[in-house]
Amino acid sequence: MRILGIDPGSHVTGWGIIDRSGNYLRHVAHGEIKPRRDSLLSEILLDLSSRLGAVIAEAAPQAVSLENIFYGKNVRSLIRQAQVRGVVIYACADRGLPVFEYSPLEVKKAVVGYGRAEKRQVQMMVKAILKLSSVPPADAADALAAAVCHANFMKEHPI
Amino acid sequence: MRILGIDPGSHVTGWGIIDRSGNYLRHVAHGEIKPRRDSLLSEILLDLSSRLGAVIAEAAPQAVSLENIFYGKNVRSLIRQAQVRGVVIYACADRGLPVFEYSPLEVKKAVVGYGRAEKRQVQMMVKAILKLSSVPPADAADALAAAVCHANFMKEHPI
Repeated sequence: MRILGIDPGSHVTGWGIIDRSGNYLRHVAHGEIKPRRDSLLSEILLDLSSRLGAVIAEAAPQAVSLENIFYGKNVRSLIRQAQVRGVVIYACADRGLPVFEYSPLEVKKAVVGYGRAEKRQVQMMVKAILKLSSVPPADAADALAAAVCHANFMKEHPI
Repeated sequence: MRILGIDPGSHVTGWGIIDRSGNYLRHVAHGEIKPRRDSLLSEILLDLSSRLGAVIAEAAPQAVSLENIFYGKNVRSLIRQAQVRGVVIYACADRGLPVFEYSPLEVKKAVVGYGRAEKRQVQMMVKAILKLSSVPPADAADALAAAVCHANFMKEHPI
């Protein structure tokens, strides 16, 4: 089972891919999609969809996992993040992938063990769980954490 | 110049098409896209993009006009509206259409003459400006108002 975790952001969108086989999780790849700061929103969304499409075509994941969003630094950044998130969900669904959503609490619990973890703890635990040689950038770590969360959920609720 | 105005909503997305030729505005068509209430977000976004694509293919507009969003009834509905809005912008840009954004104040001023107008006033003025035989539904009226706003802007700022 190959899972693509995505962390859509108002600026950077992180992604991370893992394989689950039984209890075993294997890191496949991760990265961050950063638009040019001065791009039009429409250009940012086109670019994001096309780069996410390239990741999906290359890695052929079977499912996508995302955190729900509930708040932002401010309304402007929340709106921007939600616009990006809508296009991320659309881009995955349009390529036939089922999209699963988890609360931030569930994602943090899945990697750190409790829901109030700091960003840095998520990065460290993702590194440990997936036996990475270095700490992944924050947005890619959040994406990998969402993928780990879905892997755990599928183990406990097999279909 | 054929303009497609869109009013992306957390539930209903209104659309409206007008032609501008000099000072003259002509109503072409309007409608509302309503997803089934129990659909998954991914299904709603796929359906929206496909139905908007059909409107664009049929009417062949040359530009798209949308209101900016700044707030919602609550955070949940704001996030949902912004997710839909992101996909609307993506769907139009992906079909090669330039997307223009106006503030709610600019859109209301364009049809009612001042920025604090009520929904009902927008509907009545859109009916009058476009010589419609009946009052359009609120979301389609907002979409037509966005189109009228862009038509006025283009008249004053020809390219």
